[in-house]
Amino acid sequence: MDLLYIIDLTGTLVFAISGAMAAADREIDIFGAAFTGFVTAIGGGSLRDIFLNTRPVWVDDGNYLLAILIGVILAISTHQLIGKLRRTLFMFDAVGISFFTIVGLQKSLDAGSSEIAAIVLGMFSAVMGGVTRDTLMNETPLIFRREIYATACLSGAVAFVVLSSLGLSEEWNAFVSASLIFLIRIFSVRYKLSLPIVGG
Amino acid sequence: MDLLYIIDLTGTLVFAISGAMAAADREIDIFGAAFTGFVTAIGGGSLRDIFLNTRPVWVDDGNYLLAILIGVILAISTHQLIGKLRRTLFMFDAVGISFFTIVGLQKSLDAGSSEIAAIVLGMFSAVMGGVTRDTLMNETPLIFRREIYATACLSGAVAFVVLSSLGLSEEWNAFVSASLIFLIRIFSVRYKLSLPIVGG
Amino acid sequence: MDLLYIIDLTGTLVFAISGAMAAADREIDIFGAAFTGFVTAIGGGSLRDIFLNTRPVWVDDGNYLLAILIGVILAISTHQLIGKLRRTLFMFDAVGISFFTIVGLQKSLDAGSSEIAAIVLGMFSAVMGGVTRDTLMNETPLIFRREIYATACLSGAVAFVVLSSLGLSEEWNAFVSASLIFLIRIFSVRYKLSLPIVGG
Repeated sequence: MDLLYIIDLTGTLVFAISGAMAAADREIDIFGAAFTGFVTAIGGGSLRDIFLNTRPVWVDDGNYLLAILIGVILAISTHQLIGKLRRTLFMFDAVGISFFTIVGLQKSLDAGSSEIAAIVLGMFSAVMGGVTRDTLMNETPLIFRREIYATACLSGAVAFVVLSSLGLSEEWNAFVSASLIFLIRIFSVRYKLSLPIVGG
Repeated sequence: MDLLYIIDLTGTLVFAISGAMAAADREIDIFGAAFTGFVTAIGGGSLRDIFLNTRPVWVDDGNYLLAILIGVILAISTHQLIGKLRRTLFMFDAVGISFFTIVGLQKSLDAGSSEIAAIVLGMFSAVMGGVTRDTLMNETPLIFRREIYATACLSGAVAFVVLSSLGLSEEWNAFVSASLIFLIRIFSVRYKLSLPIVGG
Repeated sequence: MDLLYIIDLTGTLVFAISGAMAAADREIDIFGAAFTGFVTAIGGGSLRDIFLNTRPVWVDDGNYLLAILIGVILAISTHQLIGKLRRTLFMFDAVGISFFTIVGLQKSLDAGSSEIAAIVLGMFSAVMGGVTRDTLMNETPLIFRREIYATACLSGAVAFVVLSSLGLSEEWNAFVSASLIFLIRIFSVRYKLSLPIVGG
């Protein structure tokens, strides 16, 4: 429980850093950077909770907003340094989406959603923060770019449901499914894999 | 009840087809197409349910996501065929928005909303899926193009509330009001009718 | 209570006018203008209520939608006149965001949110309607333009929480904090103040 909480806060902080950094690439002021950091960090999980008709965790637990604030301040104050750490941030992001997908899927099942909805909501938890950020910034959301990102999350979420029905224990299942997301993401970028386009 | 359920699922499937087809017109991969199909099909009803503070039906009933999956697969696998059926799809869409507006209005009234809010939420049920899709795809949403689309839904929703206060039975009222939406939509496209622009 | 209700409805009407006017600057029909008026007026408060997992007030109380309707009709029928009143509308908007921030913050605290979340949700109440409108219209949202707008709301919200912890009475606190927002907004525009950009 404690470990999961710390991982969750860390993931929030990392997503806030990557969100705020997106602002550093254009003429956006420090408020705008903080806003994009916030949206990136809480957008996906909040959308999941809204669909589940529950209250997002950051509304009640102030630590999530503190983690975002720290992430944003880190990103703004050290953005030239962080710019050189893009490779590290890419790895952090890959870990983050793996973790958020499986946790989001479990939260959805716990809140009584159907398994197929939990798969969608798990993926949403991981990717919709970035999608919301891109939409607000008037850019083509990452899910419409030809990278394997949301598909990796979806694959891991499907794997979790299948392995769960085969009787794998929840801890092992979470580890295996999250690892699958991470590996698909890493390999698809390394080998420039992409999905076929419609009609292509 | 059973008939309504089947119509609802069919409408969801048709909206998913038309959403996924929007992706076929540009360089979007099959995941992006599935995503736009999903958003188009569930966006409007979900927004209504979120405003009503209830849980969207697709979260609990997996059949809606299955209908979307079938619609997306149909759209992707037969998109050249479907491209020739644009006229048929246009008619399906006109039926779909007529149905979704009235069902959305009734669901809102059942959930205790005011009548004027139910009119807005009925219209939202029909059009906001497409609006969300267009916004995510960085296009001008259909409601800002000069077609009579949301206005048709709004007219039918107003008619329903007026006819209801005049004592028309719910079944007849639903049929008459939905038909009004359908006819306004069809005639406005056929005769290229449009609303005046502001200051025009 | 009654006074607050009247101010709330007036603020909603003013936001609807300013939202509908945004449509008058481009080729948008009267439905589109009504829609942007609606989104601008209810977007921020609705997003706050959705995060708080409560039902937005306009769903139950029809007076809010009537206020929006009146605002939109005023904007459309007198838009050339209103165009000359931009200075007046700017002042109304500055009053509106000051009021909505503090009311939104209080509603969030009443609904049990943490103080740091209430600060964010108060600011959201004031600015997210305009952000949603800009996003739908495919424009760069105001929070990414280099004006001091959301930052003014945030400052007043922080002031309210600090003054509250120092024991200031709620009425005086609301007055002082809202005035602070108003003054920061007015002065920053008058003297063309802006926040530093990231890395600038």
